[in-house]
Amino acid sequence: MNTFGHRFRFSTFGESHGKALGCIVDGVPAGIKIDEEFIQNEMDRRKPGKNKYATARKEGDKVEILSGVFEGITTGTSISMVIFNENQKSKDYTNVKDLFRPGHADFTYFNKYGTRDYRGGGRSSARETAARVAAGAIAKLMLKELEIEVQSGICAIDGVEASEYDFSSVSDSEIFALDKNVEQAQKDAILAAKNKHNSVGGVALVNVKNAPIGLGEPLYFKLDSQIANAMMSINAVKAVEIGDGTLSSKVKGYDNNDQIRKDGFKTNHSGGILGGISNGDDINVKVYFKSTPSIFIKQETVDIHNDEVDCELKGRHDPCVAVRGSVVAESMMALVLADMALLNMSSKIENVKKVYSK
Amino acid sequence: MNTFGHRFRFSTFGESHGKALGCIVDGVPAGIKIDEEFIQNEMDRRKPGKNKYATARKEGDKVEILSGVFEGITTGTSISMVIFNENQKSKDYTNVKDLFRPGHADFTYFNKYGTRDYRGGGRSSARETAARVAAGAIAKLMLKELEIEVQSGICAIDGVEASEYDFSSVSDSEIFALDKNVEQAQKDAILAAKNKHNSVGGVALVNVKNAPIGLGEPLYFKLDSQIANAMMSINAVKAVEIGDGTLSSKVKGYDNNDQIRKDGFKTNHSGGILGGISNGDDINVKVYFKSTPSIFIKQETVDIHNDEVDCELKGRHDPCVAVRGSVVAESMMALVLADMALLNMSSKIENVKKVYSK
Amino acid sequence: MNTFGHRFRFSTFGESHGKALGCIVDGVPAGIKIDEEFIQNEMDRRKPGKNKYATARKEGDKVEILSGVFEGITTGTSISMVIFNENQKSKDYTNVKDLFRPGHADFTYFNKYGTRDYRGGGRSSARETAARVAAGAIAKLMLKELEIEVQSGICAIDGVEASEYDFSSVSDSEIFALDKNVEQAQKDAILAAKNKHNSVGGVALVNVKNAPIGLGEPLYFKLDSQIANAMMSINAVKAVEIGDGTLSSKVKGYDNNDQIRKDGFKTNHSGGILGGISNGDDINVKVYFKSTPSIFIKQETVDIHNDEVDCELKGRHDPCVAVRGSVVAESMMALVLADMALLNMSSKIENVKKVYSK
Amino acid sequence: MNTFGHRFRFSTFGESHGKALGCIVDGVPAGIKIDEEFIQNEMDRRKPGKNKYATARKEGDKVEILSGVFEGITTGTSISMVIFNENQKSKDYTNVKDLFRPGHADFTYFNKYGTRDYRGGGRSSARETAARVAAGAIAKLMLKELEIEVQSGICAIDGVEASEYDFSSVSDSEIFALDKNVEQAQKDAILAAKNKHNSVGGVALVNVKNAPIGLGEPLYFKLDSQIANAMMSINAVKAVEIGDGTLSSKVKGYDNNDQIRKDGFKTNHSGGILGGISNGDDINVKVYFKSTPSIFIKQETVDIHNDEVDCELKGRHDPCVAVRGSVVAESMMALVLADMALLNMSSKIENVKKVYSK
Repeated sequence: MNTFGHRFRFSTFGESHGKALGCIVDGVPAGIKIDEEFIQNEMDRRKPGKNKYATARKEGDKVEILSGVFEGITTGTSISMVIFNENQKSKDYTNVKDLFRPGHADFTYFNKYGTRDYRGGGRSSARETAARVAAGAIAKLMLKELEIEVQSGICAIDGVEASEYDFSSVSDSEIFALDKNVEQAQKDAILAAKNKHNSVGGVALVNVKNAPIGLGEPLYFKLDSQIANAMMSINAVKAVEIGDGTLSSKVKGYDNNDQIRKDGFKTNHSGGILGGISNGDDINVKVYFKSTPSIFIKQETVDIHNDEVDCELKGRHDPCVAVRGSVVAESMMALVLADMALLNMSSKIENVKKVYSK
Repeated sequence: MNTFGHRFRFSTFGESHGKALGCIVDGVPAGIKIDEEFIQNEMDRRKPGKNKYATARKEGDKVEILSGVFEGITTGTSISMVIFNENQKSKDYTNVKDLFRPGHADFTYFNKYGTRDYRGGGRSSARETAARVAAGAIAKLMLKELEIEVQSGICAIDGVEASEYDFSSVSDSEIFALDKNVEQAQKDAILAAKNKHNSVGGVALVNVKNAPIGLGEPLYFKLDSQIANAMMSINAVKAVEIGDGTLSSKVKGYDNNDQIRKDGFKTNHSGGILGGISNGDDINVKVYFKSTPSIFIKQETVDIHNDEVDCELKGRHDPCVAVRGSVVAESMMALVLADMALLNMSSKIENVKKVYSK
Repeated sequence: MNTFGHRFRFSTFGESHGKALGCIVDGVPAGIKIDEEFIQNEMDRRKPGKNKYATARKEGDKVEILSGVFEGITTGTSISMVIFNENQKSKDYTNVKDLFRPGHADFTYFNKYGTRDYRGGGRSSARETAARVAAGAIAKLMLKELEIEVQSGICAIDGVEASEYDFSSVSDSEIFALDKNVEQAQKDAILAAKNKHNSVGGVALVNVKNAPIGLGEPLYFKLDSQIANAMMSINAVKAVEIGDGTLSSKVKGYDNNDQIRKDGFKTNHSGGILGGISNGDDINVKVYFKSTPSIFIKQETVDIHNDEVDCELKGRHDPCVAVRGSVVAESMMALVLADMALLNMSSKIENVKKVYSK
Repeated sequence: MNTFGHRFRFSTFGESHGKALGCIVDGVPAGIKIDEEFIQNEMDRRKPGKNKYATARKEGDKVEILSGVFEGITTGTSISMVIFNENQKSKDYTNVKDLFRPGHADFTYFNKYGTRDYRGGGRSSARETAARVAAGAIAKLMLKELEIEVQSGICAIDGVEASEYDFSSVSDSEIFALDKNVEQAQKDAILAAKNKHNSVGGVALVNVKNAPIGLGEPLYFKLDSQIANAMMSINAVKAVEIGDGTLSSKVKGYDNNDQIRKDGFKTNHSGGILGGISNGDDINVKVYFKSTPSIFIKQETVDIHNDEVDCELKGRHDPCVAVRGSVVAESMMALVLADMALLNMSSKIENVKKVYSK
């Protein structure tokens, strides 16, 4: 069950401290130009070790394409990409080998499977998300052909919230901040927690421009269902909002409905999705990341024999997983849209005929 | 794409004003006693027309089982259930035939499919959820065999929030309120909006007791992903939170981690899910419903020729879809758990051998 | 697991002696005209009780559409169809209630599920194929829009083989014979066996004209894989051949290869499929049905307590299931093609752009 | 669509002359000991270049496991395996770059995708089956835990048929012959064709011992459907028979039915499958491979501009793909059984309770 998507789908493999991680991307239409530099740039946006707001683990995260691309063009066959791990320090984990780190998947993996790769969380590590970004880059190259654009940024850290969203400022910011006015306060929050061996949470905003009307399959493959599924599959995510989200439960119907004029919707409370289907307006989704569970304060836990022990972690960790997580959320959005764009092709017989007419 | 689930799965059919709606439930293990009275009781909890807080449309919502049950026991074959529509008033929709009701799926369905059944929203109507409750009842009968219990209630209406959650009070409340202290204020909010031809939103809480450790498949079939997917597939849902949800993005790691003792977790901020897998604690999920889009105030919209027109609705509608929606959310949770329970069976070879040992 | 197909998919329900059987057809593009008379004609071709070469059980097999069609046009939502059983004689099965009929699924169902609906084989009865024909009729209506034609006939009964295949003679033949010259001999073989309380097998040929090049997804969703899967899912089928089939294993490469000229292939040994993908030539598939397991000769068997008993059947049975089975094989072919046609739409980015260009 | 299976599933990648090929195997239960030597032995059985009856291309086919195994034990996470190509000679294909080799997928791939990797058939090459054997080896290690055994051999080459099936003689035979008495004649047939620059076809028999009763999900995931699907997905396969197969269409019901006694079935015409479900008897399947399409005789074809040209192949090819194909068929059978064994676990509530009882 390491696969996501239906028509444009990807499967990932790899553990935090294993040999390599990677993915197979399947269902990619033939004829798409594969820009390897673009893919690597996407990887670099997420990669660790770049600044003091992220983990110190240094990984080049170089992607190698093993299949599915011939002379720079997709062939319609499965695209495999691999990223070799370079900078594991498995010894950091010797002391947690037999105990369950609070807030982590250790307890549940061990009980589910009867065994676990304890090194850096094994498969449950957010390191797996490198493979998602690689897959997401392929999705973005497809979306580019349809002129659909996906972007993301950080709108809150530790409760310090952006009051305006400026995607143009994201690439210059070490924490992908959407609002320059609160960026420093958000950075301070991260470092303050880090200095106390603690961690913070945050919120990413993902935005889509120029999505065609019609993406999303009612009822159980609604665009919002698929987005929620995708976002909740990212490590540390605990809540997802579409458009106005929780706020929509507090205002009256008249104020929440987006009335319609010739040239489009007057407002966008819905976040660009009506009845599970994109309405042509901007798609907006907020993704809430919990504070990083890996902290360096002593905590109470049990070991695999259910004996009570203290847990004192070492290692290198992100003080705020939301930051790099926003790039992953953006990748997942691209993957959902690519999938839904292919699924939607057969919605009407008119489209089917377009493809098969000679 | 009218199917939900993987091993325990169901497919639904039917439109608001069509002949009938219903479902096929597939993958139900053989040997489960089917209590038809229980199923009908579940239907009755959701059915419309019971009081002034719900739509006036009266439907008996009588479920007829057409297959898959023999002498009161499931046989392992697909279970089909049908509910005939009794009280359609299609004429109420003549005036909206050619226009797009704001906040509804009319606009997106029409653009996606090039056609639509305009009567009561057709397939996009929440009437479809009757079929989910029927399927959910089968799921509950299976969960009962594993002693897993699912319940739900309303924790907020129009911003009026419960401060305590008492599931025992839900069945006596016309609005399934979890907190008797705010129930009247919540009811008042509904009626106040209704009287002004407007509507309100609300929040349902779904709780699971006694889920075994191990439900949920990392990474893309996490229990929380599947729950988010399920809940977002319900009409009018715009946000989903697992455990502390959005709050987890605002507190420090130390305060959000659930430390562990011999006899279990000390707190339950995680909502019973760690790393996408149930941890044996209570599962808690909040589901945010937007205010009902069907209101009787004049609104601006366009028609199918993109001409600007006024939209004035008639008909019978829930002033707050969250109320009956909570029963649907509970059903969806039961369906997710049944599915995940079957998927988890093969997590370790020890379990496989248990089944095949002679 | 009562579902077939990926993009154009259907799920069936119902038992031989239950209330009803039927299906949900999902993924049907919107905008297809639904000709109910055509659907009923398809049903009538398969229905029992028409002549002495088939079972005496009389069923009207009237199909009722419950959803997914509005004003005679598909809406893109799930199409549900139901067929009520009219002429069950469950008493015929009282004497086989506790024993396993040789050649039937009784033994395996009972052991797999721990229970079974013994009336007429329950779910394992070929009566289920009525639902396939209904679903297949919808598929045919879609294929008609693409000018793809599917037909079938009987090429062998009890080893009496057709030497030429004339599809125009099928509709006039009570046994759907492809070769008028052997039709009488084939009929005689059926009656001779029937008179001795025995049964015969047969072979159906399914032919497709005008399939576009490109249907079928390598590697595991090859057109031939999907056809084989479909045909083997029909009751009593024990072998499937594509094109020259078994013969291809006996001739040399030079004689089996279909050489190519400007205007097409010089021969069609491949049966219209190369590398799992349709090549534009006629698709030809042979489907081998075993002789009907229901015979009226005394046989040895055991009962559910594993005690040895004699099995003496009563009831009404087809002396040769291949005859009506050919209609089912034709329906399954239509369903596979509809599915593959939709899947193939996204094979190249050029097609994706065709659909999304404004 | 490069994925096979439902609960035990694998996805493959890689082209004949690309960097590497490999697979991700997903759904493997945790706790299985992974014997890497066994996996490599399986690879060696299929690998090319071993003798004059196979292609001269020499590949070490060394498998490297990149994930999913920790300290020699499966962890329940996805297992990735990679095989780097070593001995490509892409230049051999320069002269076929723009033309369609008869009997190959060149024509259909090009038309479906609008592009193709012409080197050695690219993705359509049987080289991909190396990844299947690697995945199959994991499946076999799981089946071993359940004491299920899968074996295969060659029963016919170029029409020279085995009259007895002795699986113990297979491993000593360069052509995996089941019948020593005809082995030499079969070898001679291969070499005779090879010397004339032609090729031959053949038939593999796959046998399963000790399969539990109950594998296979009616109706569309019947064990025989899944086997047929699997076998037809192998390059060059044109027909599949279960048990007596085509013969079952020629004998009377009484002679084809397997009567039952206390200690089992009196005969095994059914091939161990009744109603799509394993009956505990040996499973027997025949797989028919066409003669290798790659021959060195001049053939007529067209090029990508639809101009008529002559096709004269160079390169290294198996004169009979059935031989190494039998190992692939055996692997696919193991993969189907592993999948069906996991799917069957939830067939009855009694099994579900076994897994969840404390």
